[in-house]
Amino acid sequence: MAGGKAGNSKSTKGKEKEVKKETKLGLSVKKDDNFGEWYSEVVVNGEMIEYYDISGCYILRPWTMSIWEVMQAFFDAEIKKMNIKNCYFPLFVSPGVLQREKDHIEGFAPEVAWVTKSGNSDLDVPIAIRPTSETVMYPYYSKWIRGHRDLPLKLNQWCNVVRWEFSNPTPFIRRVYEEFLAVPVIKGKKSELEKFAGGLYTTSVEAFIPNSGRGIQGATSHCLGQNFAKMFEINFEDDKGEKAMVWQNSWAYSTRTMGVMVMVHGDDKGLVLPPKVVALQIIVIPVPYKDANTQAILDTCAATVNTLCAAGFRAEADLRDNYSPGWKYSHWEMKGVPLRLEIGPKDLEKKQVRAVRRDNFAKTDIAIDGLGEKVKEMLDDIQQSLFDTAKLKRDACVVVAKTWGEFAEALGQKKLILAPWCDEEEVEKDVKARTKGDMGAAKSLCSPFDQPELPEDTLCFASGKPAKKWTYWGRSY
Amino acid sequence: MAGGKAGNSKSTKGKEKEVKKETKLGLSVKKDDNFGEWYSEVVVNGEMIEYYDISGCYILRPWTMSIWEVMQAFFDAEIKKMNIKNCYFPLFVSPGVLQREKDHIEGFAPEVAWVTKSGNSDLDVPIAIRPTSETVMYPYYSKWIRGHRDLPLKLNQWCNVVRWEFSNPTPFIRRVYEEFLAVPVIKGKKSELEKFAGGLYTTSVEAFIPNSGRGIQGATSHCLGQNFAKMFEINFEDDKGEKAMVWQNSWAYSTRTMGVMVMVHGDDKGLVLPPKVVALQIIVIPVPYKDANTQAILDTCAATVNTLCAAGFRAEADLRDNYSPGWKYSHWEMKGVPLRLEIGPKDLEKKQVRAVRRDNFAKTDIAIDGLGEKVKEMLDDIQQSLFDTAKLKRDACVVVAKTWGEFAEALGQKKLILAPWCDEEEVEKDVKARTKGDMGAAKSLCSPFDQPELPEDTLCFASGKPAKKWTYWGRSY
Repeated sequence: MAGGKAGNSKSTKGKEKEVKKETKLGLSVKKDDNFGEWYSEVVVNGEMIEYYDISGCYILRPWTMSIWEVMQAFFDAEIKKMNIKNCYFPLFVSPGVLQREKDHIEGFAPEVAWVTKSGNSDLDVPIAIRPTSETVMYPYYSKWIRGHRDLPLKLNQWCNVVRWEFSNPTPFIRRVYEEFLAVPVIKGKKSELEKFAGGLYTTSVEAFIPNSGRGIQGATSHCLGQNFAKMFEINFEDDKGEKAMVWQNSWAYSTRTMGVMVMVHGDDKGLVLPPKVVALQIIVIPVPYKDANTQAILDTCAATVNTLCAAGFRAEADLRDNYSPGWKYSHWEMKGVPLRLEIGPKDLEKKQVRAVRRDNFAKTDIAIDGLGEKVKEMLDDIQQSLFDTAKLKRDACVVVAKTWGEFAEALGQKKLILAPWCDEEEVEKDVKARTKGDMGAAKSLCSPFDQPELPEDTLCFASGKPAKKWTYWGRSY
Repeated sequence: MAGGKAGNSKSTKGKEKEVKKETKLGLSVKKDDNFGEWYSEVVVNGEMIEYYDISGCYILRPWTMSIWEVMQAFFDAEIKKMNIKNCYFPLFVSPGVLQREKDHIEGFAPEVAWVTKSGNSDLDVPIAIRPTSETVMYPYYSKWIRGHRDLPLKLNQWCNVVRWEFSNPTPFIRRVYEEFLAVPVIKGKKSELEKFAGGLYTTSVEAFIPNSGRGIQGATSHCLGQNFAKMFEINFEDDKGEKAMVWQNSWAYSTRTMGVMVMVHGDDKGLVLPPKVVALQIIVIPVPYKDANTQAILDTCAATVNTLCAAGFRAEADLRDNYSPGWKYSHWEMKGVPLRLEIGPKDLEKKQVRAVRRDNFAKTDIAIDGLGEKVKEMLDDIQQSLFDTAKLKRDACVVVAKTWGEFAEALGQKKLILAPWCDEEEVEKDVKARTKGDMGAAKSLCSPFDQPELPEDTLCFASGKPAKKWTYWGRSY
């Protein structure tokens, strides 16, 4: 079973009965001490990813794919209800199409990968790998859309896009989805500087990682206006027989959402995964003693798993006889399984199991009778607690800054800064320039839809001009 | 709605009530007259694909994606039952890894796409786009597999691979899956010349397209033996503590299966799609007359769709008032919807609908009362009939050839040739050389598992040496 072994597990040296007392399962750094290294280690040791021999590429292992499949299935069903249909466009874009929208391509140009050879032969014209999907799709929208009855044209595609990253790419980080991952986000509008290149405006949900003091774009939605329609000649005849130009929007979220989830919930023992998305919600572990009836314990473990699976939970027992219970605890804690059930001789006697929560390590004895209901309650509570805890931590990072001094101090403390702003592009450029440094410059994250009251004479924290709105600022991924 | 318009539909000129008497919905060539052109036209006019501005690339439109999603969901669930887990490996391969297995890469080298630039900068080392998945995955198998408990490692990935095709690439054609597509296939073993490069042996299912007289590999499964394990150092410690090397297999099928389905079932009116996979099984069309109660007809159409959907069918009504019933018949015939229900004033009166089958155009009046059961029967019958008809046509193409003369004659008639063979690689090369021509050379398709009796003194059709087995031969895609 591909998902059933530790990232660092060593060969078992052929001794079937050898019980390991020590393992190398742990993490070598603490989340609070070196967040970047902690993250790199936890995603590998938790068997979510494997780094790859090409920089910026990584392998999504089954433990990750199963989470992505839950999120994708949910999202796919939701958009199908809205009559959005799936399609699939090629991986390649010809240069002419890619360069049609100048502002847009400027935003991506240095990151575009170009195919110039097939086998040993040079291609007549180099071909780009899609850095984004809009330019690939829109020439065909122009072809397919003729009259007003062809509208709205609502298409989705699940695909990979390629942008070359140059400095220390971090797996997963950029777009997030809230409901399943228990990650609190702020809904708002991006600034002119930070909007999607070539679009009219961009809205987003923004997450925040307290440990690194960085915001992350959770998912984006772009109102493209008629700009792309103009460049790609996506016209139609309206119901009066007159020529008109379509309005467009586009939106995306990606596997990187899972990186945010890991960063927000993980701890020094490894991954902490929300019950709603994890491949395995409950791990059942036998705790035999010398004189105990081992077979009865193993049988009870297997029966417990059957009961839980029949009730719709995702449960497994770890019955391997060459690992100690302690090793197994560490292993499944590293992998972030939300709930562990231990069954030993005493539990057998009392017709109970011992439940241990991954999020807070709380231990409870639960009667086997009525186990399903109790487990459901606990998983629901874990899901909610993860969100609540994350929100408390996030909220504790928010600082209101009305002056440059307050802003600079809060930035130094890695805070998520809410500041009154004049909403001028030049001022944001200036903020970036003034905050340049090793950790990266500050930028606007979003202007929340839910705006606090802004007294009339409030001034911009950066320019001293009259403020137009409250905006979140900070460093970001 | 993206799926709801014809590939060739023109603008409606803003006249809401205009009823079209003529359309350009038809195909300009007949399947029997020019099969290649017929195919190119039917996949575009049936809105399955759109050709793309890069040769060999094409767009999978929603009508295709919905079929693929049915097949993928079925297959994904089946392999999950076998505890095969999904993963995702990067699109890119470094040259060292790609070239590790020499025989293997030789089979693909001229078709490999190479990325040499990001933005305007040359990469230090060119990077390949995966032409196949084995070489991408196996270096990591070497890392993940340590002891015998790590075996079997069973991973699947849904992904795109890139191989540059040089001459008239035909969309979809190569690997097929039988159950849903109603396409008869022959199970067998590939010859040494035709096996997967670098593997031990390959088995396949082979379909045959009577119109073009060509075989198509429906899906392949490769026993890789220990060759890749050796090249990629995928070793483990067995249960006796000794070093051993893994045995591997790999298998694949792809979206190209759908091309075979189109070729086999399609006719001069367009696509003919099997009920099990098609996005829309039943189209309900109102047939109003001047004096009839149009609203009552429309209401009955809507009610019929509701009844059918509630019973689990995929049904829709085409209530558009700017197209005539005849136009709609042609439109949905082109798209291959298995069953059409027409509802006019007389049907309303008699509490019936008129059912018209796409596969054979048989017309039946069905009472509204008990419609669901009758529709189920008809769809089941259509699914079975498609398979039976395809099998009859395929079987009618099979010719047994015992001598070169018989073989050459049958090949000239575009047959699927079953011939006794000595199973020698040089002889197959010779057959290829002797049959070279405009239509392409003949090659072995597979040696069927279900072998007819082979009398002891039977000689090879090509070499005159003693025959070892019966093998299917023909031209192929």
